[in-house]
Amino acid sequence: MNAGEIRIIGLGGIPEVRAGDDLPALIAAAARAQHVAVEDGDVFVVTQKVVSKAEGRIVDLAAVTPSPFALRYAAMWEKDARQVEVVLGETKRIVRMERGVMICETHHGFVCANAGVDASNVERTGTVCLLPVDPDASARAIRAGLRGVFGVDVAVVISDTFGRPWREGHVNFAIGIAGIAPLVDYAGQVDPAGYELRVTQMAVVDELAAAAELVHGKLARVPVAIVRGAAFAPAEDASTAALVRDAARDMFR
Amino acid sequence: MNAGEIRIIGLGGIPEVRAGDDLPALIAAAARAQHVAVEDGDVFVVTQKVVSKAEGRIVDLAAVTPSPFALRYAAMWEKDARQVEVVLGETKRIVRMERGVMICETHHGFVCANAGVDASNVERTGTVCLLPVDPDASARAIRAGLRGVFGVDVAVVISDTFGRPWREGHVNFAIGIAGIAPLVDYAGQVDPAGYELRVTQMAVVDELAAAAELVHGKLARVPVAIVRGAAFAPAEDASTAALVRDAARDMFR
Repeated sequence: MNAGEIRIIGLGGIPEVRAGDDLPALIAAAARAQHVAVEDGDVFVVTQKVVSKAEGRIVDLAAVTPSPFALRYAAMWEKDARQVEVVLGETKRIVRMERGVMICETHHGFVCANAGVDASNVERTGTVCLLPVDPDASARAIRAGLRGVFGVDVAVVISDTFGRPWREGHVNFAIGIAGIAPLVDYAGQVDPAGYELRVTQMAVVDELAAAAELVHGKLARVPVAIVRGAAFAPAEDASTAALVRDAARDMFR
Repeated sequence: MNAGEIRIIGLGGIPEVRAGDDLPALIAAAARAQHVAVEDGDVFVVTQKVVSKAEGRIVDLAAVTPSPFALRYAAMWEKDARQVEVVLGETKRIVRMERGVMICETHHGFVCANAGVDASNVERTGTVCLLPVDPDASARAIRAGLRGVFGVDVAVVISDTFGRPWREGHVNFAIGIAGIAPLVDYAGQVDPAGYELRVTQMAVVDELAAAAELVHGKLARVPVAIVRGAAFAPAEDASTAALVRDAARDMFR
C-alpha cells in the first residue's frame, strides 16, 4: 500500500532578475538545465523577490521624500525615514506599531511586517523591494508563460516570508496563486467514526509555500521550486483574496 | 546544476491507534509494508492524534463535571459544557473568547483554538482527544523507538492543525520535536549584495509539519510522513519551547 509521495525540486542557476525580464523563460531555462521534465499538475512555487524584480517593483530611496510622520517615527527607532515612507505607501492600515516594529495590512489585505517592503536580496544598496501590485495577476502571467513554453497545465504559487503572532521564526506563505484552489474544504465531511470535522479548511497553498521554502533557503539562490504529486483542486479563477480573513471574523486586528 | 530535492513519503495502513500501543513499531511496520528503506536524516512527521491516542490522552466526557463557568459559557454558545471544561483544564490563559471561539494558551505555551482539544477522528463518540502532556518527550520516545527498530538516526516532528490570525484556512504546525533544531538562524549572514538579512530565523520544523500535511490529508488515514532530503541542523536537546514567543516580545496576546 503506497500512501502517496510528493517531490519538491529546487530550480537553481537563475541569474539576478532585472525589471522587464521574462521570468517564465528564466524558469524554463533553469528547469531544462536540470533536465526536469515539467508535468501536468506540477505546482511552481516562486519566491516574491524575483517576481517583484521582474516587475520593476524596486524603489530607489534617494527619490523618496519622507513625511513628517515617517521622519519622527524613524528618528525614534533609528530607521531610514525614506524606507518608513515606502512602507506607509504600501500600507492600508497599521495593525501594530510597537517597539520599532510595524505590522501592516497591505493593500492586498495581507498582514505582515513592514507591508512586505524589504531591503535584503536586492542588487543595489539604497533600494528596497515591494510586493507585486497584484500577485494573483503575477501568478497568472507566470502560469500562462510556463504553459506557453512547456505546453502543460501547471499551477503557480508566489510565496513570501512572514512572521507569525505567538511563534518565533518565519515561514513562507502564499501571496499570489494561479490555477489552484487556495483552500481544501472538509466542511460536512465526516471522519471514520462519523464525527463531522471541526477543521473545515486547510490552506493548501500556504502549505505548498512552506514546503517549497525547505529547498529555496535564504542564501541559496533557489527562487523557484516545483512541487510534484500534491493533490489540489484546479481553479481557473483562484485568488489569494480567499485567504484574507474578513475583518468582521478576525479577532486579532 | 541540481538545486536539491526533497521527498515526502506518506505512510498509510496504520491501524486505529489505542492507548498503550507501540507507535514506533506501528510506524516501522507501515514503512516496511511500503518497502520504504529508512535513512539517516529522514524526518518523521507524526500527527498529534495518533501520538495522543497511544499515550491515552482521551477523555470520556461522561466522567467530566463542568464548572459553573463552563456551564454558562456552553449555554451561551450551544457547546457541550463538559468539553468546555476539558478545554479549560488544558488552558493556562485564554487569549480571546469571542463569538463562541476560545483561543487558548496551552500549558506548553502554544496558542490555538480550544487548547488543542478535539472531538474529531476519535474512535468513540462522547470522547475528546487532548494534546500530549509533553510533546517533545513524545517525539524523543518515538525517535528512540525508530532508532531501535531501524538502526538509523532520524528526526521526529509531531504536528497539529492550527488556525492563524488574519488568514483563512488551517495549516499544520510543529508541537513536539526531537533530533532537529527548530529554527534556522540567518542572523548576521549577508545576501549576495552584502545586505544583512532582515529575516533572521526560519521555523523549519513548522515548514516540515506543513509540508507533511500535503500527504497526511484529513480523511486519508496517513498519520505519518517521512520527509527526506531536507537540510536541517541535528540537535539532541531540541524543544518546541524555542518556538514559543516570549510574552514580553509578543504584540498579539
